[in-house]
Amino acid sequence: MALIIEARDGATDARAGRLRTAHGDVRTPAFVPLATKATVKGLLPTEVKALGYDMVLGNTFHLMLNPGAELIERFGGLHGFMDWDGPIITDSGGFQVFSMGHGTIADEIKSRPSRARHGERVAREGAILSIEEQGVRFRSYMDGSERFLSPEGSMAVQSSLRSDIALSFDECTPFHVDRDYTERSTERTHRWLERCLGWHAEHGPAGQLVYGIVQGGVYEDMRRASARVVAASGCDGVAIGGSLGAEKAQMYEVVGYAVAELGGERERLPRHLLGIGDVDDLIRGVELGIDTFDCAMPTRLGRHGTALVPDPHNRWRVDLTKSEWRTSEEPLMEGCSCHACTRGLSRAYLSYLARSGELTGMRLLTEHNLAFLARLMADLRQGIFDGRLPEVANSLRRAEYRPKPPIR
Amino acid sequence: MALIIEARDGATDARAGRLRTAHGDVRTPAFVPLATKATVKGLLPTEVKALGYDMVLGNTFHLMLNPGAELIERFGGLHGFMDWDGPIITDSGGFQVFSMGHGTIADEIKSRPSRARHGERVAREGAILSIEEQGVRFRSYMDGSERFLSPEGSMAVQSSLRSDIALSFDECTPFHVDRDYTERSTERTHRWLERCLGWHAEHGPAGQLVYGIVQGGVYEDMRRASARVVAASGCDGVAIGGSLGAEKAQMYEVVGYAVAELGGERERLPRHLLGIGDVDDLIRGVELGIDTFDCAMPTRLGRHGTALVPDPHNRWRVDLTKSEWRTSEEPLMEGCSCHACTRGLSRAYLSYLARSGELTGMRLLTEHNLAFLARLMADLRQGIFDGRLPEVANSLRRAEYRPKPPIR
Repeated sequence: MALIIEARDGATDARAGRLRTAHGDVRTPAFVPLATKATVKGLLPTEVKALGYDMVLGNTFHLMLNPGAELIERFGGLHGFMDWDGPIITDSGGFQVFSMGHGTIADEIKSRPSRARHGERVAREGAILSIEEQGVRFRSYMDGSERFLSPEGSMAVQSSLRSDIALSFDECTPFHVDRDYTERSTERTHRWLERCLGWHAEHGPAGQLVYGIVQGGVYEDMRRASARVVAASGCDGVAIGGSLGAEKAQMYEVVGYAVAELGGERERLPRHLLGIGDVDDLIRGVELGIDTFDCAMPTRLGRHGTALVPDPHNRWRVDLTKSEWRTSEEPLMEGCSCHACTRGLSRAYLSYLARSGELTGMRLLTEHNLAFLARLMADLRQGIFDGRLPEVANSLRRAEYRPKPPIR
Repeated sequence: MALIIEARDGATDARAGRLRTAHGDVRTPAFVPLATKATVKGLLPTEVKALGYDMVLGNTFHLMLNPGAELIERFGGLHGFMDWDGPIITDSGGFQVFSMGHGTIADEIKSRPSRARHGERVAREGAILSIEEQGVRFRSYMDGSERFLSPEGSMAVQSSLRSDIALSFDECTPFHVDRDYTERSTERTHRWLERCLGWHAEHGPAGQLVYGIVQGGVYEDMRRASARVVAASGCDGVAIGGSLGAEKAQMYEVVGYAVAELGGERERLPRHLLGIGDVDDLIRGVELGIDTFDCAMPTRLGRHGTALVPDPHNRWRVDLTKSEWRTSEEPLMEGCSCHACTRGLSRAYLSYLARSGELTGMRLLTEHNLAFLARLMADLRQGIFDGRLPEVANSLRRAEYRPKPPIR
């Protein structure tokens, strides 16, 4: 088993430990920044590492279209290509191809744009052509060419990418469909998982882990059944995906259904929650027993002028493009280890950069948001080790939280 | 006098030394990176400093429109606002307002786009409304409001910006006009210089230097006369601006006319060449006795996927967006101290980032180009101190040049 559980919280299902991969350990629970297109947008790998991140997430769909898996393989995979020598998890491309047909979850649940699973909206030029048992036919947004992605194809790309963790190819069940559709879709996802594992057993690179994806929509029975099927499949870990509900309370319930089936002898299967990264969701997710999370939110928000701050009453966010910050001499927050905070850059300056669309602003806020989440996850992790998770979590939720000095 | 000349080349007019400003010394000859809109696009001030740069250039025109001089003044000027504690030179805004009327020099001399003086093209929404003896009326590209910029107004903005060196407000004489227009325009620039100096004597911040701008088009007598007028005006330094000709040979001649009038007791007036930054122009400019240069070229090229390399046969450039680099495992160049070169990132990866418009690519190539020019200028400067400038310059021109290890 890839997960070493080193500590547990007594009051919740939270656990802390290490996820062992071919490129080193991921200290869990952990947030995983997106390197969708072989770069954490605006940052250097050395900086992402310095912020305390062990793993990044690359994307099969985008990378197979540009620059192509063959090219990346020539560089020894994504590690060599993008100069990141730590663990890499790759998404299977399922979310992206199905978003072209179904619309993204973000399009459906307007109030929670960060629920978009891997966050990168599919360019409008792309289009799904057909969904078959064999796989999905679609038009490339790069050059309009017709492409086909199947479970085996996705695994082959992820094999070329040489990621440490590959995700099985699934249908990301949308929110608006009925129970019957969800059931048929979830069953296909299970069949596709078998095919992924079959291909991987024969052709997959040594040391690459494969996670199965739990679907089942918001239905308790189906989520539970899906978790059992995935856990029994022989995969190395479990990712929870698809529609998790219309609001946060429902999402926590749905995640809970899946995790409930992953106890006992299955507990050492690492658990990844796909596309979730709101601060309150991370706290709750850790309590629910999730080990890793990925989300476009912190990096995308940063590029659009929003910074994460210890303010639960405003969704932990401050939108610096708003005019109220135009003249503010205040720094972003105290105690954060990012460049903007350690230099005490004013909100006025950051607001000006954000409103002007300056690269430096995008970079500074991306770094800040990732620094914020790294610190948050490190605090939650330490809370589990110290037997103080409820205290830490409550303190975070009450926003008495102030980040500590930079991690040594 | 602000310039301390510490060494001279025997064979040319080159000199090396220190330009003393209120925020420290600029080691000359030096290239000055643009921080047009209060940021060197994509980089942090600490990084620009670490590359070896002492001074950056901010822009009166852009900053008065956004975020406004009053706001910047509240932060103690541009230094506090953008967190740069070294010397800052500010352009007067003359180039930008006149570009709206005349078109940029870049529009006229298509073969040499880098000749655009301060490089930032004026947004098309802006428009010049009238040119009067009093100043220039124009429409803001930010909000469409009517604005007025005069010599006194430009100095007042630069006073609020608290730059170490302010440039006088001039008409940037375009290339396509006739001798009569150039003469009348140059004379007005001289009258405006008097008004700038008059305003500054009464209201300018202590320690701020003022450079006059030499105009006169490509006409030897007018360039020489303008240089004499500016040198005699009581300003602290001389900038050479306006149309410098249709091709490089003519530009070197025209610069030579101006410098010829700046010898003898005027030699300690620092000399700035506006908007010039091609590698061969920097080498020749140093030989002609120029102390400082600014240009959008290295940073703008970087954002558009072109890297500077020791290859005079291709204008010292490699366009990474071209398909020939798509699969190249080669690094950018040997011996450069930038992140991309020290990590040995492949041209294939940099090409992919550039073609994808990724922020990280813009940032990496911006840093590389500035590292390249910093090293070039440091080598030229050292050549002057060592009495080996001709050897260094010839070696550079023959591309036997390979950058040395990072500056300690």
